[in-house]
Amino acid sequence: MDYLKFDNDKLYEKIQHNEKVDYVLLNGWVRTNRDNGSIGFIEFNDGTYFNNIQLVYTLENVKENYSKIKAIKTGEAISCKGKVILTPNNRQPFEIQVDDIDVLGTVSDDYPLQKKRHSFEFLREIAHIRPRANTFYALYKVRSVLAMAIHEFFQTNNFVYVHTPIITSNDCEGAGQVFDVTTKGKDPFSFFKQHVNLTVSGQLHVEPFALAYKKVYTFGPTFRAENSNTPRHAAEFWMIEPEIAFADLNDDMKLIQDCVKYCIKYVLDKCPNEMNFFNTMIDKTLMDRLNHVLNSDFKVVTYTHAIDLLSDAVKNGHKFENNNIVWGMDLQSEHERYITEHIFNCPVFLIDYPKEIKAFYMRLNDDNKTVAACDLLVPSVGELVGGSQREERYDLLKKRMEELNMNGLDWYLDTRKYGGCKHAGFGIGFDRLLMYITGMSNIRDVQPYPRTANSIKY
Amino acid sequence: MDYLKFDNDKLYEKIQHNEKVDYVLLNGWVRTNRDNGSIGFIEFNDGTYFNNIQLVYTLENVKENYSKIKAIKTGEAISCKGKVILTPNNRQPFEIQVDDIDVLGTVSDDYPLQKKRHSFEFLREIAHIRPRANTFYALYKVRSVLAMAIHEFFQTNNFVYVHTPIITSNDCEGAGQVFDVTTKGKDPFSFFKQHVNLTVSGQLHVEPFALAYKKVYTFGPTFRAENSNTPRHAAEFWMIEPEIAFADLNDDMKLIQDCVKYCIKYVLDKCPNEMNFFNTMIDKTLMDRLNHVLNSDFKVVTYTHAIDLLSDAVKNGHKFENNNIVWGMDLQSEHERYITEHIFNCPVFLIDYPKEIKAFYMRLNDDNKTVAACDLLVPSVGELVGGSQREERYDLLKKRMEELNMNGLDWYLDTRKYGGCKHAGFGIGFDRLLMYITGMSNIRDVQPYPRTANSIKY
Repeated sequence: MDYLKFDNDKLYEKIQHNEKVDYVLLNGWVRTNRDNGSIGFIEFNDGTYFNNIQLVYTLENVKENYSKIKAIKTGEAISCKGKVILTPNNRQPFEIQVDDIDVLGTVSDDYPLQKKRHSFEFLREIAHIRPRANTFYALYKVRSVLAMAIHEFFQTNNFVYVHTPIITSNDCEGAGQVFDVTTKGKDPFSFFKQHVNLTVSGQLHVEPFALAYKKVYTFGPTFRAENSNTPRHAAEFWMIEPEIAFADLNDDMKLIQDCVKYCIKYVLDKCPNEMNFFNTMIDKTLMDRLNHVLNSDFKVVTYTHAIDLLSDAVKNGHKFENNNIVWGMDLQSEHERYITEHIFNCPVFLIDYPKEIKAFYMRLNDDNKTVAACDLLVPSVGELVGGSQREERYDLLKKRMEELNMNGLDWYLDTRKYGGCKHAGFGIGFDRLLMYITGMSNIRDVQPYPRTANSIKY
Repeated sequence: MDYLKFDNDKLYEKIQHNEKVDYVLLNGWVRTNRDNGSIGFIEFNDGTYFNNIQLVYTLENVKENYSKIKAIKTGEAISCKGKVILTPNNRQPFEIQVDDIDVLGTVSDDYPLQKKRHSFEFLREIAHIRPRANTFYALYKVRSVLAMAIHEFFQTNNFVYVHTPIITSNDCEGAGQVFDVTTKGKDPFSFFKQHVNLTVSGQLHVEPFALAYKKVYTFGPTFRAENSNTPRHAAEFWMIEPEIAFADLNDDMKLIQDCVKYCIKYVLDKCPNEMNFFNTMIDKTLMDRLNHVLNSDFKVVTYTHAIDLLSDAVKNGHKFENNNIVWGMDLQSEHERYITEHIFNCPVFLIDYPKEIKAFYMRLNDDNKTVAACDLLVPSVGELVGGSQREERYDLLKKRMEELNMNGLDWYLDTRKYGGCKHAGFGIGFDRLLMYITGMSNIRDVQPYPRTANSIKY
């Protein structure tokens, strides 16, 4: 008998296209195995397709191998030979009538992923095993597809991808706590002969490339040594930071809107099974929420107007944890969510923030009080994207950097005197975007091996 | 007059498709400007297309603005309004008859990128400006396209992209010098409450994902604190590390060959102008070499046989710097290049290396002396890819790790007792692949902001 080797995805594809398949050889893992003495069923998956394949073994067919096959355990790696049987009236379009199964890899008795439902907290302790659990299997697949969405969006629009450095002597925001990069020995900074740390943002490094290619983006890991034990903060996370030249804040907001919609649509198109799973098991409002975003024009509201609206809400009896709404304050998540969820019920760009609460590189508006920043707020999450038009005027930027005692950025200032032009960009936290698109609520559950304070087993 | 705003790439595209374009508005930068008193020519580029656009201004047409326009300097950001004139008999298919030009960003007199030819060494000192120089403009574009080639190759083959962690408590190879990740204060490792360092490889972290998805890959930055001042070593570099389950060394070599050919073909297709530039200006053998690889079946040669061949070469009078060819030695670049260039003149997989010179996780062959490793050697570079089948047998792997006094990898061993199976993978240094494909000979010239010992200005 000639058994054709297949991955599950290709087998599903062939059958969905009504192509004839007969005898197949499948390698993969056992999700469950149950039998009644004369017939048994293995839920089988090789990781290439969301749905399992059912392997059906009968005493009649596998004969003396029956007891061997019925003893196969959850998690074991197997090689199955059998015949494809179409089952157009069942939920699954086909099953495999088993001729024989070999065990390629056993599982020891302490295998932590048993059939029962495990808590996310427990699964976090076995980050190397949890990709086999349904939720995480779906999640990391979506993570991969979402990363590809980002690249396709920018590359099809002729953006140039720039690998900005991880080790740097700059601390972009001039504020965040950073991890140092050291070597053993008397002088921990001897390797580079100066203080260096892990990057907190690729923006400053990518701006000079925008002045060569007009449209560029970074997509890589960034780091914050903040000891924030929240569901939304990790010490290591991936950021997407595009930068466009000859562009202002409006161009920036258009790009953000296009990018976010593209990503959502891409994932819905490429991962229908996974997204259906998240909508069923994790967040029943997920699909509605994402479709609502796809069909919304994002609103634009000034910070100043938002403060008025929040003040009105307080006057009308709404209670925030921080109820002291004053112009100049940094908005908290509760305020941001109130704006996007209760006032507008759609994605909202807040723009023109007080310069004091925003980064030094943002362009000063003509009022001399606010800067051309935009934060995208979305329902159920709050801030998803932060962007700004950059200060392209050499003198103003230099003055601002002096006010803030920033040094060592002469090269950055250079870009303002060597053919500079207006330009803008933004940053998306990739892990938070993934949380938003899947409905997962803890950043520890969307990273392969999350890095948060006090926890690093791998 | 209605001037339609265009990027250069879109304008070239329209004209190549014989679509009518009349009056245009172009934003970009001046490469050169020369005039003879009544007519002048600006070589103009906005970064979206390799070829410049020629802007032609005449006294007759721009009148009193002539002296303003003739004063525009190399590097300045400009906005040009003009009319597209087709020039089918010239090298460039069209030019712009200027109506007016506004300067958006001037350059100060110390602008380092003048019209003359600059050395790569000089340009390394201005990493934030060199993307505007022809070679680097072409190079970072190819870098971006090559990164996309990697993602497209793996994603169209249904591999799952995994972001393996940068900060880790493991030192994969058990050998390399690592950078530590610390915070300020009495205990530099207090943040994670244990010693942590920058990853030297994502392989160990990605293997568990191969046992969930069958086909996975990483693509991210890795680090080595080696003080090697060579043209091929950097402290920070990007690595691609795929891993495939139910696969042996032959499957691995097939995947490597497919991947390398796909990348070369992709770049040749998407960057014809840039690749032509490299072939003309950097390495006149480049195209021949790449096409030769595309059309070669890669040879497979055992390490043991290679040692015999090298011994024969020495007997026949060939002089290596290290002429002492003995079984068990680690091959140097001179040996590798001799094999691929002189003996076979095509890409060669060397396989089955002595276990002592290879990593602990490689699968022991039945001879008990060699491991199922493969290094891909290519002409003019030497080693380009390193791969292996992994030791999937729990007892053998555990024993090898004990011999090498390796600790803290229980989670890695777990994967061998929880439904493990044969699997294999490889690593490609992305920066070296880029050097190979462009003919550039120094890793400092293919990274946006290279990180090598003693040099970190940005």
